[in-house]
Amino acid sequence: MFKGLCAFPLTPVTTQGVDEKGFTKLLSRLTEARVDSIGVLGSTGSYAYLTREQRKRITLIAREQSAGIPLMVCVGAVSTEQVLQHAEDAQNAGAEALLLPAMSYQRLSDDEVFGLFETVTQNVSLPVCIYDNPGTTHFEYSDELYGRLSELHGVRSVKIPGVPNSPSTAAQRVKQIRSHLSSDVSIGISGDAFAGLGLNAGCDIWYSVCGGLFPITAKEITEAAAKNDKDGVTERVARLEPLWALFRKHGGSLRVIAAAAGIMGITEIDCLPRPLRPLHADDVTEIARVISQLGLD
Amino acid sequence: MFKGLCAFPLTPVTTQGVDEKGFTKLLSRLTEARVDSIGVLGSTGSYAYLTREQRKRITLIAREQSAGIPLMVCVGAVSTEQVLQHAEDAQNAGAEALLLPAMSYQRLSDDEVFGLFETVTQNVSLPVCIYDNPGTTHFEYSDELYGRLSELHGVRSVKIPGVPNSPSTAAQRVKQIRSHLSSDVSIGISGDAFAGLGLNAGCDIWYSVCGGLFPITAKEITEAAAKNDKDGVTERVARLEPLWALFRKHGGSLRVIAAAAGIMGITEIDCLPRPLRPLHADDVTEIARVISQLGLD
Repeated sequence: MFKGLCAFPLTPVTTQGVDEKGFTKLLSRLTEARVDSIGVLGSTGSYAYLTREQRKRITLIAREQSAGIPLMVCVGAVSTEQVLQHAEDAQNAGAEALLLPAMSYQRLSDDEVFGLFETVTQNVSLPVCIYDNPGTTHFEYSDELYGRLSELHGVRSVKIPGVPNSPSTAAQRVKQIRSHLSSDVSIGISGDAFAGLGLNAGCDIWYSVCGGLFPITAKEITEAAAKNDKDGVTERVARLEPLWALFRKHGGSLRVIAAAAGIMGITEIDCLPRPLRPLHADDVTEIARVISQLGLD
Repeated sequence: MFKGLCAFPLTPVTTQGVDEKGFTKLLSRLTEARVDSIGVLGSTGSYAYLTREQRKRITLIAREQSAGIPLMVCVGAVSTEQVLQHAEDAQNAGAEALLLPAMSYQRLSDDEVFGLFETVTQNVSLPVCIYDNPGTTHFEYSDELYGRLSELHGVRSVKIPGVPNSPSTAAQRVKQIRSHLSSDVSIGISGDAFAGLGLNAGCDIWYSVCGGLFPITAKEITEAAAKNDKDGVTERVARLEPLWALFRKHGGSLRVIAAAAGIMGITEIDCLPRPLRPLHADDVTEIARVISQLGLD
C-alpha cells in the first residue's frame, strides 16, 4: 500500500467535539477520487489533540467509510504505553498500517526512538511507516537511524519531511536515504510543496495534506509520476504555488486546510481543536480566492 | 504560596506503572525538610507521559502526603479540553495552585496561548502559574505575552526558564520582566543552575528540580536568599556545579535526577516512562560519585 497517493484528511473538531458528519464528508471525497490510501489522524488529523476514545472513533468511521481503500492510522503519543494502546485500537479496528512519529516532550535519543519502534513492531503485526516531521515532533532522524529502523520487521515506509530545492540535489538526497534502507522500505514525500521534487526524485508515495481535501488535484500529480511524466508532475505542482504560499504564510498547512474545508461547506469554518484558532476573516477570504482561482478539487 | 522553595519531585514509573511507593518516599523527604511548596507532575514529574487517571492518582497521593504544605499541580496537555480535565481533577483533589505550560504540537501563536490561559482561568478558581519551558514545550513567551497573561484574574506567578549569566544582566532581566507583570504576580526561577543568579536578581521563588530530591540542600539556598545573603546564595549554588554539569551533559535534569533517586534507593534505577531510557552504568557511577562528594540531601 506504500505507493501512489496517501491522502490525509482533517479531523474537524467543534465545541461539541469531533464533527463526525464533516469527517465523513471528507472521507467520501477521498473514496470517490479513489486515492491509493487514506491516512487518518496524522498531524492534519490532529491526533495529538484527541483522546484515545476520539481516536478509536475516528478510526472506526474511516474503516466503515473507506470503501476498501487501505487505511493507515497515526498512533503517535508522547508515551510508549499510549502508543501501544492506539496501535492495538487501530489493529482491532481493521487498519492496514500504522504511522508512527517520534513525538517528544523530553528530547529523545536515537536509542530511545529505536526502542519505541522496536516495542511497537514487537507488539503489533501491522506494517509501520516511520513518520519524520521535526516541525511538530522536534525529533530529527539521522539517515543511520532510518537504516536501523528499516531493519525492524514491520517497518515498511518512511515519510520524509521534504527534499532539497533542486531536481538534482533532491534525487541525490532520495538516493542517499535509499542507500540506508532495507530494500522493501518505500520512501514517501511530504511537505506538499516538495511533492513534485520528491516524486521526480524517486519517492514512491506522496503523503499528502492537499490530497486529504483536494484528492482529484493531488491524484493528477501522482498519476503523472506513475507514468514517469516528470514535466507533467513539475507543472502540476508549480501551478499550485499559491496554495503552498498560503501554507508558508500560516506556519504550515493545517490552519489553511481547515479554513478551506470550512469555505467549501464540508466543515464549520472553525473546525480546529483548541488551543488552535481559526484564521482571521481576511485570511479566509484570501484562501477562498486561491481555491477558486486554482479550481482545486 | 509563590515564594521560597517549590520542590518538584519525580514521578517514578516502572514497567508496572507508576511506582507509588517510590513517589511517597520522595514526598516524605520534602515534608520532612519543610519545603515551602510542592509541585507535582511538572516536567520532572513526567506529566506529559501519564494518563489522566495516573495524574489524578499522583495528585491524590501528594495531597494525602503533603502534611499541609501547599500543593501545585501541572495540568499541561496539548489540547485545551484535556487541560481543563486535568485542572478540574486537581481542583477536586484539593490542590492549591495549577502550573500551566503552553505544551505545543502545532506551533502556537500568542493569541492561542492567551486563549488557553483565559479558558483555564475562567473555568477554574485556583491560582495559576505560567510555565515557560521552551526546551520541552517549544513555545517561547514574549514579555508582552507575560504581561497580557498576568492581567488575567487567577494568574499569580511565572516560572521563567533562566536568566542571563551575570548578576547585573540577570537583575536587569528580572526587572524588565517585572515591568510587564501585574504587581501581584511573582517571578520564579527555574533551570537549577540559574537558581543563585535568579534569586539574587530578585526572583521570589525557586521552582526547583534539585529541591524535589535534595530538599535540604535546596532549602539552604532559598533560606540564604530570604536573609538577603547574596554571597551565601552564590556560594551554595556554585558548590553544586558538578551537579549542574551533569544536567548539561545529559540534556537536562530529568535523567540525572531519576538515576540519583535510584542510586539513593528511593526508586528503581530504571524509573523513567518509556520511550525514555535510564542512563548507562558508567553515567550512573559518575552521578553516585557526585552525590557523595557534594553530600547532597
